Amino acid sequence: MKKAMVQGNHIRGVLAPVVTPFKADLSPDPQRLIAHCKWLLLQNCGLAVFGTNSEANSLSMEERAMLLDELVASGLDPSRMMPGTGCCSITETVELTARAVEYGCAGVLMLPPFYYKDVSEEGLYRYFSEVVQRVGDARLKIYLYHIPPVAVVGITTGLVERLLAAYPNTIAGMKDSSGDWNNTKMFLDSFATASPARTGFDVFVGSESFLLANMRYGGVGTISATANVNPAAIHKLYVACAEQSKFENRESKLEQLQARLNVARAVFNSRKFPSMIAALKQAIAIYADDPAWAKVRPPLVELTPEQAKMLAAELKAIGFR
Amino acid sequence: MKKAMVQGNHIRGVLAPVVTPFKADLSPDPQRLIAHCKWLLLQNCGLAVFGTNSEANSLSMEERAMLLDELVASGLDPSRMMPGTGCCSITETVELTARAVEYGCAGVLMLPPFYYKDVSEEGLYRYFSEVVQRVGDARLKIYLYHIPPVAVVGITTGLVERLLAAYPNTIAGMKDSSGDWNNTKMFLDSFATASPARTGFDVFVGSESFLLANMRYGGVGTISATANVNPAAIHKLYVACAEQSKFENRESKLEQLQARLNVARAVFNSRKFPSMIAALKQAIAIYADDPAWAKVRPPLVELTPEQAKMLAAELKAIGFR
Repeated sequence: MKKAMVQGNHIRGVLAPVVTPFKADLSPDPQRLIAHCKWLLLQNCGLAVFGTNSEANSLSMEERAMLLDELVASGLDPSRMMPGTGCCSITETVELTARAVEYGCAGVLMLPPFYYKDVSEEGLYRYFSEVVQRVGDARLKIYLYHIPPVAVVGITTGLVERLLAAYPNTIAGMKDSSGDWNNTKMFLDSFATASPARTGFDVFVGSESFLLANMRYGGVGTISATANVNPAAIHKLYVACAEQSKFENRESKLEQLQARLNVARAVFNSRKFPSMIAALKQAIAIYADDPAWAKVRPPLVELTPEQAKMLAAELKAIGFR
Repeated sequence: MKKAMVQGNHIRGVLAPVVTPFKADLSPDPQRLIAHCKWLLLQNCGLAVFGTNSEANSLSMEERAMLLDELVASGLDPSRMMPGTGCCSITETVELTARAVEYGCAGVLMLPPFYYKDVSEEGLYRYFSEVVQRVGDARLKIYLYHIPPVAVVGITTGLVERLLAAYPNTIAGMKDSSGDWNNTKMFLDSFATASPARTGFDVFVGSESFLLANMRYGGVGTISATANVNPAAIHKLYVACAEQSKFENRESKLEQLQARLNVARAVFNSRKFPSMIAALKQAIAIYADDPAWAKVRPPLVELTPEQAKMLAAELKAIGFR
């Protein structure tokens, strides 16, 4: 299974932006996090810890560093990790990124600095360039994180073009969480498939709802919130897509798998719930029979007891898990 | 002069979101910052260090803490300081805020957590509430920072209502950088002037272009980027507004002062320059004859040599300084 997900030096397949459990005092809970990560790895799901769904930006840099230390100390395989390390400040981004590289993480998922809006491509280029040079390590693999609905500041093809030209071995790919397939296709066309001369630019979609499309057009997998709760089914579609042999009714079978994933995702993504993050944590609280898992840090809020009941009923109705 | 700017416990008048100088290696430069702060204080300008124009979110929390330590150690008066302490994480916001309170700062200017968008009022209330309780110090004065063009996440009247009800002695006011006078007026009407029973909610406008209007409607001053380079003229309007005696042609004289400020501001705020921050730093570099001042941290970019020349010419043309 591992073979399907690591080609050459590059991590591929299904990764979860691992949700971060909190204790009653809102401090991060390393033991619950480690247990969840172990379970995800058993489902062939890589660990994109410290992503948007991890509430990483609601953690201090020190809390993220501490959690990474704990994850590695617990024996979890860093080659299956792609920690989020992009902060608004170069200094913090460099510190977290260097730590991830030292530990041998497969790569890092890097947000652009997201406080100032309408910044120039030149400014973003200088930011990433400064980070690459300060980390100064040939093992560094950066996956650029495009999530305009949240960060507002985005990754453009012009920026990727310049970064790839300057750092072809470091800029390893991107996660596209635009929710816009045309945008993903544009990046695939520009960098992943068009030029066989490229050293490889791996495009992950930010939602498994685009997984089949992404795999058809030369993408390499998905880093998706719902992989926290539905990793096996998402991995099943990934493996079927990656499968070389032409099995019977291939396309319709793939589409069936995709359709089933979409049904599960719709439950979590409902506007009924305060956020998908809170709904995912509530689902884990239900399945692990561990109410502590439901906790989120402000400004996010947990599901109300009524919403939690609704979620449980809907998950039961679709025969989830 | 000081009397005009501190009424009771509350800092008022003109404050500058102090621009942060950087060394060639992009590390913050405490000595240049201290010198600039001393000059601002001599112009009756308070120190809103670590604001948007300070590139505070391009600094790590540790860099901000270090700079605050240096400012206080240099003998600058903390009662004239309103450091920005709002981060995306409660833990970092609490750490910086507690430090500012310990030093006896007049207050803190607090951004809402700005990574997640479309967060609920309840979530923001929980965030600020958690910060107040963790800092747990009666000396804490919070000025809520509303700057939707940058932070996107904003401060609503409903949120202020709830926070004032829960923490009437801690929620001291706000800075409105919406750029929308109707929004400022709504906050003034709701909290600053309507109810004499309130303990006081001080509204600062985020641009001196609204200073006269703000003072007319019960506001208390401005925290404005251009106060970094034009503090005396802005303070002159503030003092004239605050003056109780009805001097001759009062209104038309006030409007003249306001109009002159607007001319200076327009030079820095021009879309010709990559950002107002870069233009302000370039102006300081020109007037201090110290090119090092021009440096900004990515994702911001400095003015090109051509833009710098243009700025110098325009400042000369308006007889600035």
